[in-house]
Amino acid sequence: MKIAIMGCGVVGSGVYEIVRDMAGKLSKGCGGEEISVKYILDIKELDAEKSALQIRDIDIIANDPEVLIVVEAMGVTKQDFDFCLKCLNAGKSVVTSNKQLVAEKGEELLAAAEKNNVAFRFGASVCGGIPVIRTLFYGLAANEISSFAGILNGTSNFILTKMIKDKMTNAAALKLAQENGYAEKDPTDDIEGFDAARKTAILCSVCFGKHIYPDEIHTEGITGISDEDVEYVGSIGSKIKLIGRGEKLENGKIYASVAPAVIDEAQLISGVDGVFNALKVNGNKVGEVLLYGPGAGKDATASAVVADILDCIRKPGFDSVYSWENGTRNDVLKYDEYETALYVRGYVKDKNKAVCAFREMLDGVRFLSRENAPENEIAFITEKKKEKDIKNAVDSVDGFTAASIIRIIND
Amino acid sequence: MKIAIMGCGVVGSGVYEIVRDMAGKLSKGCGGEEISVKYILDIKELDAEKSALQIRDIDIIANDPEVLIVVEAMGVTKQDFDFCLKCLNAGKSVVTSNKQLVAEKGEELLAAAEKNNVAFRFGASVCGGIPVIRTLFYGLAANEISSFAGILNGTSNFILTKMIKDKMTNAAALKLAQENGYAEKDPTDDIEGFDAARKTAILCSVCFGKHIYPDEIHTEGITGISDEDVEYVGSIGSKIKLIGRGEKLENGKIYASVAPAVIDEAQLISGVDGVFNALKVNGNKVGEVLLYGPGAGKDATASAVVADILDCIRKPGFDSVYSWENGTRNDVLKYDEYETALYVRGYVKDKNKAVCAFREMLDGVRFLSRENAPENEIAFITEKKKEKDIKNAVDSVDGFTAASIIRIIND
Repeated sequence: MKIAIMGCGVVGSGVYEIVRDMAGKLSKGCGGEEISVKYILDIKELDAEKSALQIRDIDIIANDPEVLIVVEAMGVTKQDFDFCLKCLNAGKSVVTSNKQLVAEKGEELLAAAEKNNVAFRFGASVCGGIPVIRTLFYGLAANEISSFAGILNGTSNFILTKMIKDKMTNAAALKLAQENGYAEKDPTDDIEGFDAARKTAILCSVCFGKHIYPDEIHTEGITGISDEDVEYVGSIGSKIKLIGRGEKLENGKIYASVAPAVIDEAQLISGVDGVFNALKVNGNKVGEVLLYGPGAGKDATASAVVADILDCIRKPGFDSVYSWENGTRNDVLKYDEYETALYVRGYVKDKNKAVCAFREMLDGVRFLSRENAPENEIAFITEKKKEKDIKNAVDSVDGFTAASIIRIIND
Repeated sequence: MKIAIMGCGVVGSGVYEIVRDMAGKLSKGCGGEEISVKYILDIKELDAEKSALQIRDIDIIANDPEVLIVVEAMGVTKQDFDFCLKCLNAGKSVVTSNKQLVAEKGEELLAAAEKNNVAFRFGASVCGGIPVIRTLFYGLAANEISSFAGILNGTSNFILTKMIKDKMTNAAALKLAQENGYAEKDPTDDIEGFDAARKTAILCSVCFGKHIYPDEIHTEGITGISDEDVEYVGSIGSKIKLIGRGEKLENGKIYASVAPAVIDEAQLISGVDGVFNALKVNGNKVGEVLLYGPGAGKDATASAVVADILDCIRKPGFDSVYSWENGTRNDVLKYDEYETALYVRGYVKDKNKAVCAFREMLDGVRFLSRENAPENEIAFITEKKKEKDIKNAVDSVDGFTAASIIRIIND
């Protein structure tokens, strides 16, 4: 089996090395077939070994009947969609780790794959090396998935972990992440939740069967999380994690969000630290399943890409499991219509008056304390209610200025 | 696609219900094929609905060319192997959740499947609803698996969790497990580690490619774990868990054991409580991956069986991924040749003298304390060394009687 790799950056070269170095294992994984890389498409200079396979023209791949599988590892570029489409239309299966491509164009590419009876697989696009997508499509195929919640971005989880475990400030933890190569120079995508939103969009599409776009997902990052919040939340045995969530509601709508969440330490997912990722899924038959592992990195991501290549060989042609419907903008619930408990921190003019007002308006409100808190600081957790109703109540308290509002995930 | 179910107990009826109730989802999962149960083989009286499909003669299944997939859900019986073999030889794929059958006869049944070009799948035989086997065969197919460690038995984990969290004695926790239906009247299989040893044997075979039998696996249960041990181990931020392990050693041998282990609370697997299962795997490319979920139960186990049925439809015929070599008795390392750190508790005649003796013999030994310990009790943890060397040293200390020796898992 001859394959082509488009884009020889971190993931592409990882795939090249696995195919080169693990021939025996891979051959066993696909009925004795020998896999080799015929082309590497890239415009930059490659090392001597790889340059022997280098091409600069996508049409060489598209027109070569010997190449049946193409790995798209270019990352986000102007051509990613066009090149994938061209390969699918030329009768080649495509495997990608490009989450933005799948989140934005997954439905179109799957339709093209179906039309041409080839595969379009994207196991590495969510949670890197953790076999998340295939578990949802295959391992839990006998389940209706009702909800998922995941730590989908390693950079933000590293920052939060350092804030919680080492009492670092948000800014210092970000700086450390950058020094360690876990965060980009411009960390916006990771710390503002945009990366997690793309993965959440893909997971919603996979779990609930309708294409959900990243811009439909209410997205909050971790830049507003302060050490005060970490301390208050720690005092009730909980941790703050950036969580991508999706839930199929009884009225048929989908709740989808990326936002910091307060999670009880008794929940396994609260123990996911550092750059690791995890996804918790609820199926109607299996109950709760959690998968944990490295969400990024050259070899881990390449491991997931190569697993998809083997699937393409083992089952050539379109796999109807990989499909979802076109979604409409009405499928997603407005985020503040969802029922949740909240953690709230803010500042007051008159503490006693504010406490009384909150107690009156919010049944079961519980006030938190921390050492050396300024006199005018107040923090509390609420019971479960429609988010906008809690926020309206909070807004209406005279002299209260909210500094932090974080959803609590109890289940 | 017509299937037959052999054995209509807990798992068999769970499979029947999923096939009956989730037709749309299942059909999507296998290219539009409609699945229906044609026969239920059982000798006991079935309810009205199921009795319409009931047969009592295996040959009806074997001789019906319309039935292409057979679910073996009889549990351990005299006929389980013969019936499976008969079906495979009659050209039918077989799906089973029977761990004892796979652990003892997996290699023979896989050979029969290969010969007849049909599938033999057993995803539900380890960790119930958690898609463990398929993750090892497919999701991590681009990896050499170097080691695994898992909580593979829910009953014993429930008992240990109650001892740790609720300070129950071992006996009281077992009684509670029996009252809740988590433990059998005769709990030997679960609390002595035999059930976990079967699953460990299957995992060794899957991960390392050679058939390893349960009786090759050094097996210790949890009956010797006392509240004193729980307390000492808790004092160093660790928990005791019953762990099934396998490791491919550099000399080509396999280390395999089921035994209680001391695990640091910083390790995610230490947070796996109650009847849940989890498996941690190390792959040379992906690094560490952990899967968590329900290890037993009607619907969870049936969910895994049905996922295998869909695989059989999606990829008819033998899948070469599902195979391993015949092992030899020399493949497994004698358990006490393995290097490990140990936790030791016991009783001494002369405490000061014993402490001195241990310090002299065991570099880096660290003594533990607990409230209200009797004067003659002593507990310590050692550094990593060949197990038999540590035990020899311990045995040689004059006047020391060991009450508990537990391996420490640090990685």
